[in-house]
Formats: sequence, structure tokens, C-alpha cells
Amino acid sequence: MALYPEIIERLLEKFQKLPGIGPKSAERIVYYLTQSSDIDVISLGEAIISLKKEVKLCKKCFNFAEKDLCNICLDEKRENIICVVEEVKDLISIEKANFKGKYHILWGRLSMLENVKIENLKIPQLIERIKNEKVKEIIIATNPTPEGENTANYISEILKKLGVKHSRLAIGLPLGSELEFIDSHTLKKAIEGRKEL
Amino acid sequence: MALYPEIIERLLEKFQKLPGIGPKSAERIVYYLTQSSDIDVISLGEAIISLKKEVKLCKKCFNFAEKDLCNICLDEKRENIICVVEEVKDLISIEKANFKGKYHILWGRLSMLENVKIENLKIPQLIERIKNEKVKEIIIATNPTPEGENTANYISEILKKLGVKHSRLAIGLPLGSELEFIDSHTLKKAIEGRKEL
Repeated sequence: MALYPEIIERLLEKFQKLPGIGPKSAERIVYYLTQSSDIDVISLGEAIISLKKEVKLCKKCFNFAEKDLCNICLDEKRENIICVVEEVKDLISIEKANFKGKYHILWGRLSMLENVKIENLKIPQLIERIKNEKVKEIIIATNPTPEGENTANYISEILKKLGVKHSRLAIGLPLGSELEFIDSHTLKKAIEGRKEL
Repeated sequence: MALYPEIIERLLEKFQKLPGIGPKSAERIVYYLTQSSDIDVISLGEAIISLKKEVKLCKKCFNFAEKDLCNICLDEKRENIICVVEEVKDLISIEKANFKGKYHILWGRLSMLENVKIENLKIPQLIERIKNEKVKEIIIATNPTPEGENTANYISEILKKLGVKHSRLAIGLPLGSELEFIDSHTLKKAIEGRKEL
């Protein structure tokens, strides 16, 4: 005899597949749902279903989009500077910093460990895009992690060959930080990148 | 301009309402879903919706049930000993320990902090049940936490008045434990409850 009704077992299994959710959290969530109002539970289910119907990826930059192109690519006031990021959440962070250019989402980073290769990322599409659009500059804004740096170097090599102006986000001390708590690699980069006053 | 398409904002908000899921985990889950296959996402949504349609609470013991009564209450081979637990997950644990009686799920514990009172728990229904069924014994199996103990004491008072035989799970050393790591309250209870050999 199964310990839970079949639908609960099924849901537990499905929730456990989501990132960051283990058996215990899946149980807590399912218990919570059985105690929630019908309307709350049904609207959660419906929102999940409509996600796949309503959200596509922008054909140009691979940001989330409700139409063929995302709101940012459709915005004619934006400069033709393309900021290349790993994930949509990085785009969100850069938008908050008031960047007024466009983006290109790689959907990942080169990684031996996770077996992510060039063809798994939107790098070929970036090259295609550069050929078709008049791009002033590419800002490579992958994360300053080993994988992000590696990805940035790879893209930089391609852009050099194509003769496209490109840059990398500055590495240095975060505002509000204290020197004693900064790791030595960052400090080294901050010294190397010092600006004359 | 909203940073995400509306359906994603809506889903992020709904996921954040679930227990144990904060803004960052909600984001990871929604990203994961946008990358998953249509069929996986739709079947998750549908399973959530059918949860409320297919799962009820047993009219006798308040365990999850697919019909009016749960499989355990329908099982005629089980003894008429009722094990009172806080949550369905406690029932699952006791089932795994091979208990062959029945259950009563309180759906919580008395708690000043969480403002859970007698009328929020299935205690009146337990009393009603005792009056209607020929119950041999009630085992009060609320957790050995302050709230669980408090709930057990409250139920015990009622059962005394009703003249119903009842017991509490033994407090003592867990098998495989080492005395040096056992808290002194448990050790005190284990000494008090020592068994003559």
C-alpha cells in the first residue's frame, strides 16, 4: 500500500525535480497546498501551464519575451552597445544600474565540469548578430568567476578576429567594502587597474 | 517597464508564497521551468490543479484520502487502537515502524506563538469519534516538544474525564545514540523511565 494517495506521490516527485527542493521541502510544499484555498492552488497550476505558452525567448538577444522580440530590443531609444551576460538575472542587475544599451544572453557559461560547450551557448547567434547589426561596442559582462572569465576570453578572441570594439567590466573593490576583508586576487586586480587622479 | 514579462512576475510571486521558497529560489525555479520541456511544465501544473480535486481528508481520521475514508480507516484488519499525531508525516513515520492500529491527525499542535487553539485542531472530532467507536486505547503520539507535550497533556485531561485508556510514546535514548551526546532532559527522562530487567 502506498503511504500517500497517488497524486500526492506524483506531486512530491515533481517538486523534487525543481532546483533547491529536496524531499522534506517538497513535503512541506505539498502539505501547504493541501491546506490552501482551491483558488490559490488552481491559479498556481494555471500560471505554471501558461508560462510555456506565454513566454518565449527574444529572437535577437534571448531575453524573455512575450512577442518575437523583447521589450528591450523593441526600444528604439537604446544605444547599439551590446552587453553580453550569462543569464537573464544578470540583465536584471545591469538594468537596475541604469545601463541604456542592449543585451545578449548566453544562457550559461563555458564549463568543463557541467559539460557546457560553445554550441550550448548563444555564442554563434551573437556572432551572427554582430554581422547583421551596426554594433558600436560589445561589453562582455560574464561573471568574474573562472568559468565566466574563460567564456569572456573565448568571446574576446572571436571579437578580435572580427575587429569589433569590445570591453570587459572592471574588476576592483566593491563600494562600501573594507580592504581587510577583500580577497587578495581582487586586491591585486584593483592595484593593476588603478586610475590616475 | 517591468523587468520580467508579466506571467513570470506572477509566477515568482506565487512561488515565493510557498514555504521555504524565497525570492532567489523562486527565480531559480522559474528559470528552470522556462528551460524545461513543455510536457514537464504542463504536467507539473496539471498535477497541482488535480491535487485539490483528487485529494480530500478522511472523514474519520483526517488523513489524506481519495474517497470519503482513507485506506487505513477502510482496512478492517487494523486494531481499534488510535494513534493521535500532529501531521500526516508523523503517520507515515509510525506506519514505517509497523504499527497496525488506526490514526487521528490533529493537523497541528497547541501553540501560543502560532496562535493555534483547540478549535483549530481536530480535537473535538477525536472526542466525537471516541464516543462512536469502540476504542481500546489511545496512544498520544504528538512530538516530544514543548508544544507537543502541552497538546498531549490537554488531550490526556479530556480522556481521563471520558475514562478512556490512553498512553504516551516513551521518552528515552534513541537506539544507536551515545550518552555523551544526549541532552540532559532526555537523559533525566530515560532514568525516570528505566525498566527493571
